[in-house]
Amino acid sequence: MLSRILSSTNEGKTMDLFSKVSRTAGKHSPLEEEVRKLPVPVSSVFLGKDGTIRPAVFRQTDMTLLCKGHDRIAQVFPKTIETGGSLILEAVASGESERVTGKRVAVLFSGGPAAGGHNVLAGLSAVLGKDNTLLGIRKGPGGLVRGDIFEIDRESIHSIVNMGGFDFLGTDRTKIKTAEQFEKVKQTVVNNRLDGLVVVGGDDSNTNAAFIAEYLATEGVGCSVIGIPKTIDGDMAAGKYLPISFGFDTATKIYSELVGNLTQDAASAVKYYHFVKLMGRTASKITLEVALQTKPAIALISEEIAEKNMPLDSIVDHIVRIIALRRFRGINHGVILVPEGLVEFIPEMSRLIADLNKVLAEYERDIADLPSVEHKREFLLPRLTSQSAQLMASLPPALQEMLILDRDDHGNVKVSQIETEKLLIEKIRYRLSEMKRHTDRFFGKEDGKIDATPEQIEDFKKVALSTQSHFLGYEGRSSKPSRFDAAFTFQLGLAAGSLALSGKTGYMAAITDFHKGGRILALPLTGLVTAEMRKGKEEFVIEKSLVELFSPSFKAYALNRDKWAMEDCFSSPGAIQYWGPTSRQVPMIVALDQDYPDFDTFDLGEEKQVVIE
Amino acid sequence: MLSRILSSTNEGKTMDLFSKVSRTAGKHSPLEEEVRKLPVPVSSVFLGKDGTIRPAVFRQTDMTLLCKGHDRIAQVFPKTIETGGSLILEAVASGESERVTGKRVAVLFSGGPAAGGHNVLAGLSAVLGKDNTLLGIRKGPGGLVRGDIFEIDRESIHSIVNMGGFDFLGTDRTKIKTAEQFEKVKQTVVNNRLDGLVVVGGDDSNTNAAFIAEYLATEGVGCSVIGIPKTIDGDMAAGKYLPISFGFDTATKIYSELVGNLTQDAASAVKYYHFVKLMGRTASKITLEVALQTKPAIALISEEIAEKNMPLDSIVDHIVRIIALRRFRGINHGVILVPEGLVEFIPEMSRLIADLNKVLAEYERDIADLPSVEHKREFLLPRLTSQSAQLMASLPPALQEMLILDRDDHGNVKVSQIETEKLLIEKIRYRLSEMKRHTDRFFGKEDGKIDATPEQIEDFKKVALSTQSHFLGYEGRSSKPSRFDAAFTFQLGLAAGSLALSGKTGYMAAITDFHKGGRILALPLTGLVTAEMRKGKEEFVIEKSLVELFSPSFKAYALNRDKWAMEDCFSSPGAIQYWGPTSRQVPMIVALDQDYPDFDTFDLGEEKQVVIE
Repeated sequence: MLSRILSSTNEGKTMDLFSKVSRTAGKHSPLEEEVRKLPVPVSSVFLGKDGTIRPAVFRQTDMTLLCKGHDRIAQVFPKTIETGGSLILEAVASGESERVTGKRVAVLFSGGPAAGGHNVLAGLSAVLGKDNTLLGIRKGPGGLVRGDIFEIDRESIHSIVNMGGFDFLGTDRTKIKTAEQFEKVKQTVVNNRLDGLVVVGGDDSNTNAAFIAEYLATEGVGCSVIGIPKTIDGDMAAGKYLPISFGFDTATKIYSELVGNLTQDAASAVKYYHFVKLMGRTASKITLEVALQTKPAIALISEEIAEKNMPLDSIVDHIVRIIALRRFRGINHGVILVPEGLVEFIPEMSRLIADLNKVLAEYERDIADLPSVEHKREFLLPRLTSQSAQLMASLPPALQEMLILDRDDHGNVKVSQIETEKLLIEKIRYRLSEMKRHTDRFFGKEDGKIDATPEQIEDFKKVALSTQSHFLGYEGRSSKPSRFDAAFTFQLGLAAGSLALSGKTGYMAAITDFHKGGRILALPLTGLVTAEMRKGKEEFVIEKSLVELFSPSFKAYALNRDKWAMEDCFSSPGAIQYWGPTSRQVPMIVALDQDYPDFDTFDLGEEKQVVIE
Repeated sequence: MLSRILSSTNEGKTMDLFSKVSRTAGKHSPLEEEVRKLPVPVSSVFLGKDGTIRPAVFRQTDMTLLCKGHDRIAQVFPKTIETGGSLILEAVASGESERVTGKRVAVLFSGGPAAGGHNVLAGLSAVLGKDNTLLGIRKGPGGLVRGDIFEIDRESIHSIVNMGGFDFLGTDRTKIKTAEQFEKVKQTVVNNRLDGLVVVGGDDSNTNAAFIAEYLATEGVGCSVIGIPKTIDGDMAAGKYLPISFGFDTATKIYSELVGNLTQDAASAVKYYHFVKLMGRTASKITLEVALQTKPAIALISEEIAEKNMPLDSIVDHIVRIIALRRFRGINHGVILVPEGLVEFIPEMSRLIADLNKVLAEYERDIADLPSVEHKREFLLPRLTSQSAQLMASLPPALQEMLILDRDDHGNVKVSQIETEKLLIEKIRYRLSEMKRHTDRFFGKEDGKIDATPEQIEDFKKVALSTQSHFLGYEGRSSKPSRFDAAFTFQLGLAAGSLALSGKTGYMAAITDFHKGGRILALPLTGLVTAEMRKGKEEFVIEKSLVELFSPSFKAYALNRDKWAMEDCFSSPGAIQYWGPTSRQVPMIVALDQDYPDFDTFDLGEEKQVVIE
């Protein structure tokens, strides 16, 4: 066994240090101990005259939130629309009105972790105070269905405040869809006498929250259901009412630290192109933010590729051209950012995937019976459209195999498992070798060719592409929250708690104006949900907020990228700071798109020690 | 083209922010601007009475550094031994003696980047002052041979101080071996009238420095050659005289941040085992430090595996047992650390690699002529020892292919490319499926079996191992240095400059006693170099400093690991801090092995603004 315990130590002094090292276990590293003590700002709407935290009151505003197809939504959510309509609410200080007491509010995490989840709990705990009860639901919506629920004591809040992860409650990805599930949710609510249910999640979970709110209202169960916008991808957002979801800032700061280090390392070792795939299945907001922070040689933005209908070959063209032009300037290294969901935005790839899914479904049995990948491939190819078949045949063998064999629970191609960055590397390598062999086809004064001197072309033939590929994702989800995310989530908790205590239902807690004190809003969930036809079936979804090509943030990238492609002018924003002059930055894309004067500091109110009393 | 420039922006205010974002390019992020201003501590030996920086004087001590086979070393390095012997020098304040002027000292980086390289330059610049000249050699030892050299102005120092990477000079991995190369080095030294040459590098580069020192002395060229201990692996060290090399602290802090986040994420998402391969070809010091910082479920230490002669199967046994015992406690997730160089320490794997290299060399042509991997494999297997052939046949097909096809420049197997973590995952998966099918063979009260109740065994059959694999390396080499590495490297620069100005040659600058003001030493390079027979040829090397199984740092891990394996008691030391209460930590392994009272702060003297005048 490896684990033979060594029982003696050299001397007493080291023994003390042994104990100290051991005592850092269980989230007691020096940083964790110090970060727990950090104060967070609190908006004045949550402060009584004595400076203590108390629930805010939410008033109607003249701002409305309406999605396309609202008529259909009004049919599906009659109860919710009847009470709240599409009006956005805004928090104001409650004055010295009487405190609400005896209420029971439960909270759950849904989906992948994002930094700040525990501070939502801290905010809820602070605003509920001693006279109300906060409960936690274990392991996500699944726990809500099972009724797996417990009372959160205030000591626990002390231990998790400003800490990362979702582990205090756990999480899952259960979708509450069936009548039986809804009935069980009701039982959990009734059995535990819940007055409020707070759902921390992304677009799916908040859509779910809207349905639960409607269902409970229809059933006459007086429990308010409040959503909290979480996702590191930043795609659960609502423009000026909610510039970003929580977790995005922390995740992008971590990815920017690492990509910044890689840009620096590439320029130091002067031999590698680093291909970095960044989390973000649908929106490329993470990639855009990291690009603005670090100035890589290339950052691909899925939304632009879809908008311009760029085939895979054009993307390869684009990258290879930049590699060549950098080479002419003596630069043989760089960093290339690739959003995780890219393949789905490349028109012919997304057609191929749809085509494959169709054929795989139609001939499921026949294909299963075939003995080898090669047989399956030969069976499949003639049944795809000729365009898809041609593309399929041109892909690296390992990727073809993956597309044929790896299926998700619904029998579909596992898009998230496609190693896009490796596909690109292989295509680029092949193109480079073609270019070296047929220089006249690729170099010249004609449009589409690369203008180069004979010497440059000779030199280009010596290019040997050394690559490293990376995937940045999991390491950014469960970090301790940045100061921004810590403040944002604490106040989302205060807002959600205030809404629940006052019996509002079907809202999402939101914050905007991060640069001037914060404005606390409640967005009607029914104003975010739209009806869509998917595969002939009506589905209700909250539309993901994508990178807009005419947004200031994208323009800031587009205006600079040629320069960043041609010169090594990276910068490296460094590790997340909890203290010091750079600890209060907001995401660049938020500052740009919301027209803030700067990105260097947020203002969300006066700082308070997080756990009151 | 992707790069269509969008020319209009919404309004002036955003335009200002556009410009601000653009101006962060070229290492002008807010953090970079602030970190440049950070003061670094300076030992009193480098301070004049007026508080300005001046060269220290190095005195002989009664401490000696002798390696095994010193007689042979004395033959090879007669000049160096004659002048310095094996005595360690120690710096003392120079008093108010006259300043040395008119000296010319050049510096180069060698090998992979490590955080703090630029502060070595800042230290050299500060100690040389205005009256001497600092020169930089471009792109490593290769640049020294080519004579690619330039004068470093003081403005440049302002821009690189406290910044990461090796990009100001560049680096390479040229070994200076041939008579012609040595002759060219002499020409560079003579042509540029160099009085000193500072080599920033690892074991190979410092060995090289010892030979250059000897060569120049023999040739009567009065140029002092000084080495600086760099390597993120931490294996260029000399116990109490030099507890660690620079770059280790920063790299391990970054890896610990990420591994800490993954432990937290694993416990939040409750479905993944993350296999994390960590840089470190020979020594597992990085893995040990990260394990002490983060408390993962498992950390494999190569030195222990070699010492205990553990075959691959036992390692798989060990991991699977822990996965099973965690499962019994309801834990289906965790983080497993794997040092990069592990395969070379697994006895039968290292025999297989040696065996393969032998056969591949002997039958190079025959193998090259064979048409397919399968043919090559069939040709190779009977020519390996039966043990190696059996092991080879049991490896995953992709790994077999890699072992057969991927060769380095010397025709050897590319050990660093072996995806050890994926090999382990595949072996573990296979073992788990065996255990589910043949529970009686693996569970029971007998020695070597896992003691489990029938319910636990039934439950174990449901285990579905979900894994994610990661490789942490490049992102840790070129970060801005931690406060510790910034201070360490600045003073290494001060020490190397002082040595060069006083004409000492064949020494490595070293610092110890990080916890009490710092003690500045010069270690004779000949005391570090040993002669080894490798493949029948005598090679001179600086022995790598490995994890000692009886060191306090290893014991601290061994004493805790059973607990850390069975419970989720990770901690996550967080991102490198440049300000605040946790910004001054030293590596835990240094504090433990050097018997410091704590790891929470270093003391290397009074803080100074880095660039003087």
